[in-house]
Amino acid sequence: MSAQNITAALLVIGDEILSGRTKDKNIGYIAEYCTNIGIDLKEVRVVPDEMDEIIAAVNVLRKRYTYLFTTGGIGPTHDDITADAVAAALGVELYEDQRIINLMLERLKPEDMNEARRRMARIPHGAEHVANPISKVPGFRIENVIVMAGVPSIMQAMLDDIAPKLSTGARMMSETIEATGVPEGTYAASLGEIAKALPDVIIGSYPQFVDGRFRNQIVIRSKSAEALAAGAKAVDAMLKQINAERAKD
Amino acid sequence: MSAQNITAALLVIGDEILSGRTKDKNIGYIAEYCTNIGIDLKEVRVVPDEMDEIIAAVNVLRKRYTYLFTTGGIGPTHDDITADAVAAALGVELYEDQRIINLMLERLKPEDMNEARRRMARIPHGAEHVANPISKVPGFRIENVIVMAGVPSIMQAMLDDIAPKLSTGARMMSETIEATGVPEGTYAASLGEIAKALPDVIIGSYPQFVDGRFRNQIVIRSKSAEALAAGAKAVDAMLKQINAERAKD
Repeated sequence: MSAQNITAALLVIGDEILSGRTKDKNIGYIAEYCTNIGIDLKEVRVVPDEMDEIIAAVNVLRKRYTYLFTTGGIGPTHDDITADAVAAALGVELYEDQRIINLMLERLKPEDMNEARRRMARIPHGAEHVANPISKVPGFRIENVIVMAGVPSIMQAMLDDIAPKLSTGARMMSETIEATGVPEGTYAASLGEIAKALPDVIIGSYPQFVDGRFRNQIVIRSKSAEALAAGAKAVDAMLKQINAERAKD
Repeated sequence: MSAQNITAALLVIGDEILSGRTKDKNIGYIAEYCTNIGIDLKEVRVVPDEMDEIIAAVNVLRKRYTYLFTTGGIGPTHDDITADAVAAALGVELYEDQRIINLMLERLKPEDMNEARRRMARIPHGAEHVANPISKVPGFRIENVIVMAGVPSIMQAMLDDIAPKLSTGARMMSETIEATGVPEGTYAASLGEIAKALPDVIIGSYPQFVDGRFRNQIVIRSKSAEALAAGAKAVDAMLKQINAERAKD
């Protein structure tokens, strides 16, 4: 097993997700990305564009996990308050970063620079940039808090920029076994016994309901290749035995 | 404005969402559903299949909002611990509900009833069923906590069953105005002034990045039809003025 587990939380900031107007695409992407690089995403929260809510969530989550990712709320409009909230949560001040102004001027005529756009150049003292190759204005990282855009393509580019700079642990590997035709309730007890006997694997059973029938998948996860193989072998043997018994009926 | 705001939180329970294996489809659906019936979804959390995590989240969220919806973790396998966690959070005991056993026997041969399946018939004392017309085994409601399946089609059917029994407030209405061609940074200051001048409307600006260009939408939301109309009118006038000024350049 790995010496250290690296954990993360994700804080999604935005009224539009909570109203259902915008369907979030970042949670699933970041979850899969973290798994692939050896970071365990342990919690996600979605909060509205309200200062107190954001500050409270940032402070709980940044203290609890190795990293806290945030998405959303870093544009130029009045509802973009993530930088202010993160700075307040950490007890630091924002400043206008001339490097960001310069990046913006690569895309903008000088006469179009205005107060609203300058807001996007405000980052907390001590923060470093998270590069945005798409539309230039960077996100930022301060301590273990990584502030990214909400627009999925920009968020994804930012994640590519910051990921190589993060600590990572052993990768969680997984194997999926189709239990098609065997109902969950039929294998549940045996699966529970396997899960109990193999503490280094995490076993989940995931039903899908397709065309009026359940189609179940059993997922075995572990950070140890040997434990993963042992888990998969045990589940496989269990399903074979159940199918053999069912064939007799 | 409405006499009372009815609020809700959603707790998504499941390792598979946090690992990225399963892409959640319930958050967006429930968010939109709540908006449409006059319930304000104020917070979403995603937590793993861990007893302490679920109990802690249930207790924070049920006390803070009118309703708490949960999805996931009510099947027959060892990782399905939502009923146990909700009962523990509320300090009540689970019992095996014969009515649920009977519902299950509509789909199941008596010889296929086993201990794992019986787990799905366990609900807290005092809970009422949330009907599941799809696969029979119901969710449940106890106090203000509504426990639903994670499988989207089943969750949606359960929501249809419980929704008419919930208190609802005034519906949040919204109007979307396309600001195509006008960059966010150009209208941000004026939009902020409109938002400040109209306290009964919530105004958001939502950039999308399509084909290398930003396409922005301004969304005006309110529970008052008059306030909504006033907000839309003000935003419309602002965009017209900006476009007229830009045409002069």
